[in-house]
Amino acid sequence: MRVTTTPVGYAQSKDAQLKRLRRVEGQVRGIARMVEQDQYCIEVLTQVSAATKALQAVALGLLDDHIAHCVADAVADGGPQRDFKLREASEAIARLVRS
Amino acid sequence: MRVTTTPVGYAQSKDAQLKRLRRVEGQVRGIARMVEQDQYCIEVLTQVSAATKALQAVALGLLDDHIAHCVADAVADGGPQRDFKLREASEAIARLVRS
Amino acid sequence: MRVTTTPVGYAQSKDAQLKRLRRVEGQVRGIARMVEQDQYCIEVLTQVSAATKALQAVALGLLDDHIAHCVADAVADGGPQRDFKLREASEAIARLVRS
Amino acid sequence: MRVTTTPVGYAQSKDAQLKRLRRVEGQVRGIARMVEQDQYCIEVLTQVSAATKALQAVALGLLDDHIAHCVADAVADGGPQRDFKLREASEAIARLVRS
Repeated sequence: MRVTTTPVGYAQSKDAQLKRLRRVEGQVRGIARMVEQDQYCIEVLTQVSAATKALQAVALGLLDDHIAHCVADAVADGGPQRDFKLREASEAIARLVRS
Repeated sequence: MRVTTTPVGYAQSKDAQLKRLRRVEGQVRGIARMVEQDQYCIEVLTQVSAATKALQAVALGLLDDHIAHCVADAVADGGPQRDFKLREASEAIARLVRS
Repeated sequence: MRVTTTPVGYAQSKDAQLKRLRRVEGQVRGIARMVEQDQYCIEVLTQVSAATKALQAVALGLLDDHIAHCVADAVADGGPQRDFKLREASEAIARLVRS
Repeated sequence: MRVTTTPVGYAQSKDAQLKRLRRVEGQVRGIARMVEQDQYCIEVLTQVSAATKALQAVALGLLDDHIAHCVADAVADGGPQRDFKLREASEAIARLVRS
């Protein structure tokens, strides 16, 4: 667990992201309740798709903020962090596309 | 909200699915905690990808059970439900592929 | 290479699928031409996303036909092919969702 | 159609990308041939998944180059292009994740 001391990339959208995550948590709890109540597979699946899309929206938001701040700063600095940050962002995008 | 009276497709894997969903719920809560603590964007993103994959596993499991039971039964019956069930499954797969 | 002797699942939509595949082939050739001509990255990416979506549409169509015919027939027969066909379809769906 | 006068982001990987695209084109042509020959749905689907993954690899490569060059340069310049390039990249990533 690493707690950064400099502002994180998502500092300005932190509240919005937390709100989204609370909503996704509620969606997942709701899906568990549907399964407990033996609700129809297709209706459960529809809610799983909705929660997946909501998680993707969180990820896309985090990625935008990360590129606009962390990556942009490292690129502007031009130091040794530049290539590391670019590669790290590239890997995060690939994970997201494949998940 | 429709509560089915006949066994749902996922009857036999209900406990396993509930366990997975509880775990996803915990993962999402953990991601919110990471954001609250200003943890590094990339580490948060890695956890979001993991939770997304876990939700997809739930969806694939539900879909398998649905096809093997609900769709298979409607097809074996050969009645008017056959085409409806096939189209419904097709749409659920498309939603899943696109989410 | 296995050439089936019984009609394949996509027999009725074969022409439509061939037409789609020719179009995707043309799209991919067009993307190569854009790269050759040093066109702007984002415009190339937009075309790659369009070709990817077109391939997914082919896959979803094949899968629908496969479930409605090959899987449905094996299920109606109820013989030893039943479980094999269901598992095979399940794996194809998973590959599609993850690609 | 816009032909850029400055080097495009993928200038250094242009040959590798062209080679990949030629291979994808061949894969798609091969899939059409499989359909023509009535090959088994699941085998066709496996090849469609492979071609989709290959297209995604092209897209991820283009995106990496774009961020490392076009976006990075606009960010380093700090001019009015900065926000435009960041938003444009964000939209391309979102299209990719959703395709």
